[in-house]
Amino acid sequence: MKALEEKIAKEGQVFPGNVLKVSSFLNQQLDTAFLKEMGAEIVRLYGDSGVNKILTVEASGIAIALSAAFLMNVPVVFAKKGNSKNMTDEKYSAEVKSFTKGTVNTISVDREFLSSKDKILIVDDFLADGNALKGLLAIAKAANAEVVGAAIAIEKGFQGGGDELRKMGVRVESLAILDEMTDSTIKFRPQN
Amino acid sequence: MKALEEKIAKEGQVFPGNVLKVSSFLNQQLDTAFLKEMGAEIVRLYGDSGVNKILTVEASGIAIALSAAFLMNVPVVFAKKGNSKNMTDEKYSAEVKSFTKGTVNTISVDREFLSSKDKILIVDDFLADGNALKGLLAIAKAANAEVVGAAIAIEKGFQGGGDELRKMGVRVESLAILDEMTDSTIKFRPQN
Repeated sequence: MKALEEKIAKEGQVFPGNVLKVSSFLNQQLDTAFLKEMGAEIVRLYGDSGVNKILTVEASGIAIALSAAFLMNVPVVFAKKGNSKNMTDEKYSAEVKSFTKGTVNTISVDREFLSSKDKILIVDDFLADGNALKGLLAIAKAANAEVVGAAIAIEKGFQGGGDELRKMGVRVESLAILDEMTDSTIKFRPQN
Repeated sequence: MKALEEKIAKEGQVFPGNVLKVSSFLNQQLDTAFLKEMGAEIVRLYGDSGVNKILTVEASGIAIALSAAFLMNVPVVFAKKGNSKNMTDEKYSAEVKSFTKGTVNTISVDREFLSSKDKILIVDDFLADGNALKGLLAIAKAANAEVVGAAIAIEKGFQGGGDELRKMGVRVESLAILDEMTDSTIKFRPQN
């Protein structure tokens, strides 16, 4: 998605440890007009896949997931991190290492919100090592739900998680793939 | 908002410690059609206030904030909890006690996303003791931004946070206010 590549080149900031900050439109400030464009691109990619539910993980996945879901008229289910008083014991869980925060989280979804009747699209803001995506795939599998694929806003191609999952047969579509990222250069992978 | 009161009565579950679980449409599964309705109600309440930005806090405030923001064509800024590698030191912060999780969090917003030029609407999913709302008000004040008011999906009126803030002169509009909540009864405050 050319517009996203341009926005990353213009507004993205690279921090030590391969951290790309896109807080101006995706990770702290949410650019609603641009989120609508990204949602429309996800619809272009997956609109004919018969998806009845979008699965993501809190917090920063919610905005991009909801942007696509509004256009597809399907609900979003977001996995929660850690434990809180309003989570029942009846849930599907997976362990996920956070690349940005350097921590390991348990993510989970109440069993009532996923089932074998669901045809799921996984949506997330970032894909780096692929740990969050693997966790969401494990949760969908535990629920016997069908996963049509994943739609990611920004993939750090140089970390390999996306290509590893593609080799495993998972359809992974990323709106922008960074094959190289330094303080001064961001190189995108050509896509159709 | 009658439709929200009916939805809470039908799908809400009361848990020990005054916890209301509305995971089926707001806190884990996001009912996109209903979120659009709640967004439209927020526009009805604040559409003529000249708001140029919506402020909320991750994670469960993002969906309702974004639903209103899509209709108002303004960006959302969400405060983050705790610290992460992609947060700079230059931020506005406040301490917030979470009613649901029983923990104290620092919430913060990068300084670049709030300024004295902003006319802000605060949006959140729940208002109980009012701690999150007070934290967001403190952050807006630190940025010298104008706050036109707050729009809350569900206020637990019996916990008093909303009325306390109203007495302080803050405009607080809640789409549903619960004046009483037990395992068997939920009583709503009459509203226009």
